[in-house]
Amino acid sequence: MKTRLGLDIGGTTVHGVAVSADTHDVIGDQITHTTRRGADGVVASAVDMIAALEAALPDGHEVVGVGLGVPGIVHDGSVTHAVNLGLDHVPLDLAGHVSQRVADVPVTVENDVKTATLGGLKWLREQGSTVDDLALLNVGTGLAAGFLLDGRLRHGSRGMAGEIGHLVHDPAGPVCPCGRRGCLELYASGSGLRRQWDGTAAELFTAAETDPDAARIRDQLTAGIAKAISLLAYGLDVSYVLVTGGVVSATPALRDAILTDLRSDEGTSLGRLAAIADRVRWLPSDYPAGALGAALLGTPDAPAPEGTAWRS
Amino acid sequence: MKTRLGLDIGGTTVHGVAVSADTHDVIGDQITHTTRRGADGVVASAVDMIAALEAALPDGHEVVGVGLGVPGIVHDGSVTHAVNLGLDHVPLDLAGHVSQRVADVPVTVENDVKTATLGGLKWLREQGSTVDDLALLNVGTGLAAGFLLDGRLRHGSRGMAGEIGHLVHDPAGPVCPCGRRGCLELYASGSGLRRQWDGTAAELFTAAETDPDAARIRDQLTAGIAKAISLLAYGLDVSYVLVTGGVVSATPALRDAILTDLRSDEGTSLGRLAAIADRVRWLPSDYPAGALGAALLGTPDAPAPEGTAWRS
Repeated sequence: MKTRLGLDIGGTTVHGVAVSADTHDVIGDQITHTTRRGADGVVASAVDMIAALEAALPDGHEVVGVGLGVPGIVHDGSVTHAVNLGLDHVPLDLAGHVSQRVADVPVTVENDVKTATLGGLKWLREQGSTVDDLALLNVGTGLAAGFLLDGRLRHGSRGMAGEIGHLVHDPAGPVCPCGRRGCLELYASGSGLRRQWDGTAAELFTAAETDPDAARIRDQLTAGIAKAISLLAYGLDVSYVLVTGGVVSATPALRDAILTDLRSDEGTSLGRLAAIADRVRWLPSDYPAGALGAALLGTPDAPAPEGTAWRS
Repeated sequence: MKTRLGLDIGGTTVHGVAVSADTHDVIGDQITHTTRRGADGVVASAVDMIAALEAALPDGHEVVGVGLGVPGIVHDGSVTHAVNLGLDHVPLDLAGHVSQRVADVPVTVENDVKTATLGGLKWLREQGSTVDDLALLNVGTGLAAGFLLDGRLRHGSRGMAGEIGHLVHDPAGPVCPCGRRGCLELYASGSGLRRQWDGTAAELFTAAETDPDAARIRDQLTAGIAKAISLLAYGLDVSYVLVTGGVVSATPALRDAILTDLRSDEGTSLGRLAAIADRVRWLPSDYPAGALGAALLGTPDAPAPEGTAWRS
C-alpha cells in the first residue's frame, strides 16, 4: 500500500505520522522525538524519524513521499530564518540533505504553518465540510497564518505568505525582537502573553474580573487575535478561519471573548455581510495538523508549492 | 476578428474599450459616457455602451464576450452594496439583464477593483514583466484591493476579497460612514484626504513643510497607504503591489514619502528579506485598467471567478 510520511519539525520535538497515499487515513501510531538543533542535528532528526516511521509500518506498505514542515521561511529549496532550529542565517537545503539519505523517495519541505494549513483542510473534511478554501491562524509562540485558496496552498513569491505576526499593530508599542515597534504578535501570541502575564490564559481571564492590569492584557490578547482573524477573513474572504495554538485551545473564555469581539462588528452592514465570527473554527492544538499536512505535500489535493525542493 | 468588450461602470462615468480576443490589443478608441443611476439606469448605461463600442468596431470584428466592472460586491451573479450606482440594498442580476439585450454573447460581471487587477496584469506585461502574481491597491474615494495570485483572480467566498478599506486602523479614530471607528480608508483614500484637507495632496505636502496640522494629515495619509501596501505584500507575499488612484498618480511627493516609509522597515532582518518597497509599482490612474480587465474576464489568462453570472 502506498504510504506518505509527514514530519513536523519543531524547536523542541519532531512529530511524525504515516498516511495512506490513497485515502489519507493515518497508519499506525504517531511518533514523537526530541529535535536536535543545527543543520546536522535537524537533518539527523528528520532521517531518524523517517527510519522510525518506516520501521513501524505494517508489511506491504511502500513509502512514496516524505514531507517536512519546519518553522522557518522555505523558498527555492532553502530553509532560512529557522531560529528555533538553530539555523538562523544559514540557508539549508534540507530536502536535498534528507533525500540523499532516503533513496528513491521524493522529499518536500515547506514552512510548518503552511503544512498545518493542509492538515487543517484534512480536519475540516473530517468535520464533514467539502470546502477547500481556508486560512489557518496559528497562535503559538509567534503568530502566523497559512492560506489554502480555492484548493491551492499559497506559498508566496518568496515563501513568506502568511507572515502576519510582524505587521505593526501599535506604532507606539514596545520594541519587538524583530526590531519593529508594536508588532501584532507582541499582543496576540503565547510569547506575547508570557511577556505580560505570569500564568496561564485561563488564570488571566479569572484575574481580569477584579484586576484592571489583567483586564488590559486580556483585552489586548483578545483584540489582537480578533484583529488577525478579521484581517484574514476580510482581506482574503476565505470560507473558514481555523484558529489553533495552545493558548486558544486551552482557554474557552478566550475563545468566547474573541467571538464576542468579532460579533460586535455585525452592527455594520458590511460586518453583517462578512459575518466573520461564523467563519471561525477552533482547530484543536493536539490535532497533528503540521505532520499530516506535511505528509500531504505534493499530493493531487495539495500540489507542491513552487520553490519546494524535490529530489529522488 | 474575435473581439471582447470591457466596461468600467463608475458612479460618474462608464468607460468602454474593445480588445482583440487573441492578442488583447486595444481596438479603436475608448468611449466614455455618463452613468445613469438606479437598476434601470445602470442596465441602460451598459447596453448603450455596448452598442456604441459595437458601432465603432471596424468591419469583420465579432464580439465574443462582454465584461462589466462595477463598484459593488458581486457574488452568485448578484451586485449588492453598489451605493455609488444607486443600487444599495437592491441585489441586481446585472449580467442577466444586460445579456437579455445583447443576444448570443456571454456577459460577465465582477467588482471593479478586481477587473482593474486583471487590467493591472496587462499593464505589467506591457512593462515587460512575465510575472502573474500581484495585488492592486486602489486609493480612490475608498480604499480596496484586488489579488491575482499565481495567475488566478481571487474572488473570495462571498465576493469580498480585498475589501480592506474598513479594517480598523485606529480604534480611537473618528466614526466611519460604515459604522466602525478609525477605518483604514478614513486616512488612506481620496475621501479621507478631503475629510481633513481642503486642497490637493500636492498642496498638502507643500503646506506640511511649515504647518504642523498639515504635516499630521500628510503623515497619516502616507502611513495609511504604506500600511495597506505592507498588509498586502507581507500577508500574501505577492510579487508586485500595483498602487493606483488619482491622489497617488498626481502626487510624486506622496509616492516618495510612501517608499521612504516602506524602506524604513528594511532595518530589520525580515524587512530586508521582504523588501516591500521593491515590489511597489505605480499604475497610472489614466490607464484604463478597469475596462481592460473587464474585457479580459473569462479569458484563459483570467478565468471567470466562481459566482460570476454567465448568460448566452
